[in-house]
Amino acid sequence: MTAHSVFFDHNSTTALKPQVLEAMLPWLTAPTGNPTSRHVFGRNAREALELARKQIAECVGVQASQVIFTAGGTEANNFAIKGIASNLSPGQLLVSAIEHPCVARPAQSLAWQGWQVNQMKVNSDGVIDLAQAEQAFQTRPGLASVMLANNETGAIQPVSTLAALARAHGTLLHSDAVQAFGKIEVDMQALGVHAMTLSSHKIGGPIGVGALIIDKRVDIAPLLHGGGQERGLRSGTENVAGIVGFARAAQLAMQSLSSRSTLVQGLRQQLEAGLHKLGATIFAAKAVRLSNTSFFAIPNIEGETLVTALDKAGFAVASGSACASDSTEPSQVLLAMGVAPDLARGAVRVSLSDSNTSDEITQFVAALQQQVQRLKGLSAVAA
Amino acid sequence: MTAHSVFFDHNSTTALKPQVLEAMLPWLTAPTGNPTSRHVFGRNAREALELARKQIAECVGVQASQVIFTAGGTEANNFAIKGIASNLSPGQLLVSAIEHPCVARPAQSLAWQGWQVNQMKVNSDGVIDLAQAEQAFQTRPGLASVMLANNETGAIQPVSTLAALARAHGTLLHSDAVQAFGKIEVDMQALGVHAMTLSSHKIGGPIGVGALIIDKRVDIAPLLHGGGQERGLRSGTENVAGIVGFARAAQLAMQSLSSRSTLVQGLRQQLEAGLHKLGATIFAAKAVRLSNTSFFAIPNIEGETLVTALDKAGFAVASGSACASDSTEPSQVLLAMGVAPDLARGAVRVSLSDSNTSDEITQFVAALQQQVQRLKGLSAVAA
Repeated sequence: MTAHSVFFDHNSTTALKPQVLEAMLPWLTAPTGNPTSRHVFGRNAREALELARKQIAECVGVQASQVIFTAGGTEANNFAIKGIASNLSPGQLLVSAIEHPCVARPAQSLAWQGWQVNQMKVNSDGVIDLAQAEQAFQTRPGLASVMLANNETGAIQPVSTLAALARAHGTLLHSDAVQAFGKIEVDMQALGVHAMTLSSHKIGGPIGVGALIIDKRVDIAPLLHGGGQERGLRSGTENVAGIVGFARAAQLAMQSLSSRSTLVQGLRQQLEAGLHKLGATIFAAKAVRLSNTSFFAIPNIEGETLVTALDKAGFAVASGSACASDSTEPSQVLLAMGVAPDLARGAVRVSLSDSNTSDEITQFVAALQQQVQRLKGLSAVAA
Repeated sequence: MTAHSVFFDHNSTTALKPQVLEAMLPWLTAPTGNPTSRHVFGRNAREALELARKQIAECVGVQASQVIFTAGGTEANNFAIKGIASNLSPGQLLVSAIEHPCVARPAQSLAWQGWQVNQMKVNSDGVIDLAQAEQAFQTRPGLASVMLANNETGAIQPVSTLAALARAHGTLLHSDAVQAFGKIEVDMQALGVHAMTLSSHKIGGPIGVGALIIDKRVDIAPLLHGGGQERGLRSGTENVAGIVGFARAAQLAMQSLSSRSTLVQGLRQQLEAGLHKLGATIFAAKAVRLSNTSFFAIPNIEGETLVTALDKAGFAVASGSACASDSTEPSQVLLAMGVAPDLARGAVRVSLSDSNTSDEITQFVAALQQQVQRLKGLSAVAA
């Protein structure tokens, strides 16, 4: 099952880091207890769980008791939106136009309960339009959600400014920090949000683990009822091995944050220099972006076609948000940015990590050039 | 973190089997893709996921497309109860009096939506009272839920009989088969239920993985909205390593089902012979039980006290349902069986596996005798 391709799709998922597996293995090899059990096996599991909670909390500058572990970013986002809304009177719900479906769809699902869902719009750089947002907050929404960095473009959003707006209007603000965490510094206090979502598998941790970080004054209802784990807010036996791995991955990500970012930014500059020569449009190029993400289109070439061709050539890239790539619709994020649907259909995302190399970029640009020439040749013949 | 105690708490959680870890490791060491991605990494992950789905399906006699993977039994039970109820008009909801909190509490949570929650009662053996159930079904509940085997007593419930009753009254029946699966044969068709919950970590698979098996004619709403994974019914990146491990654990459990059961039943006979000599009351002793489970009380000795004493003596047992053991209330299951609260407070659960030995039982009975004498001595002094 090892694929001999270059992996350029790190916003979709990441390989588990060896040090993370090492941290997890004791919980996958020795007999372990259910953290709720009172015997020595249970107490050991509980201790590991609480240490991991403290480690995650330190990574985002909060208290351990603010960390609620979930089975991933999707669950944490659903929990935040539905759980907070459930304890408020239905009113206005404000979400950005570029949210991941696991924020956008839970928000939409609340419409039948009487919530009116409004959008924060983005400008052509894929960044929240603050003037429009200021207006939108005038309606005093009960709850708002805006991601910290967009999964497709990498554009970093003005979350702390929006949090100040939210607080001025009595709005609770949630931020999906899944793509930002481990790539830029994420400090909950500095951001000023009331709730924040993290995920493990985007930062070299295991799939199936995430967390909602919550301001303890926020009243939230559980999504999963049962044994009352996680202070009654998220029932279900805690995935100790996974949570320990998540915490280790988070620590590793923090240790080398700025050096990794510099390294990856260099790779992206090299990549985008090559893309420019091929006539590519780079989306959100003027925004402050995550340094690993490049989202682009070559005019008149379908993104899907290019992804398939590049896959055959040995490069794994995405044609939009992998998490929703069953759809053949153009990216909602690009449409929200005012990109023409035809150009949006050409979108290809390269998302790097510090495991990638300059040689890989050189080879990728060469392969892309070859595929673009071939595909343009084909369409010239067809035309 | 390795505890040198004898683990007698397998209904709470189980150690990951070495063969399961072996199956998981390729997905924890090599770069892996998001199963939604179209490149080779994604396709490989998708292939492993679909093979695991087929394997789980075969273990319970259903089609692969009926298996919806979740992050565990708690999520699957919440999904079943809330997701099915959500697509029905609020009416009667019938749950047994001995359900795990992750069925009972989701049911209770529906009350505000207009559902009226009624109970199926159990007899003194901890088995559903069929006469009362027959009456309860006369109200034509929209949805009912009854577990296949109880987590505390091990008592196996007459699910197929109840399923026939349910079908005769137009009721959809869900069964939490978490404790039964891997210990007795579980055939969805033979049971006749409309939905069924499985969990991985009770059968030597990883924590954080489970499944809801569903009759495809049942209309169910997702609990987690987002990228549309699992046929749109459960969004979130699929935990490939965990799911592969779950499927391997399920296959292993099926391969040795009856020989393991015989072995474990022998150990329990040895245990219960010793318990009888100590004057213990064994709960649900007359019921057909899971062969690994013994739930008992020594009159006038608190279960909690005994669990702590036994833990110090090197034996890990439970004082009730570990998943809800933050509570010091006597077991709801025992109260539902009509056990006096004072006796119920003495409850201790031993749940065995084929990793346990006859020597361990001998040592346990000796340790128990010693602790009982010590504790009775203390209470004699106190009196």
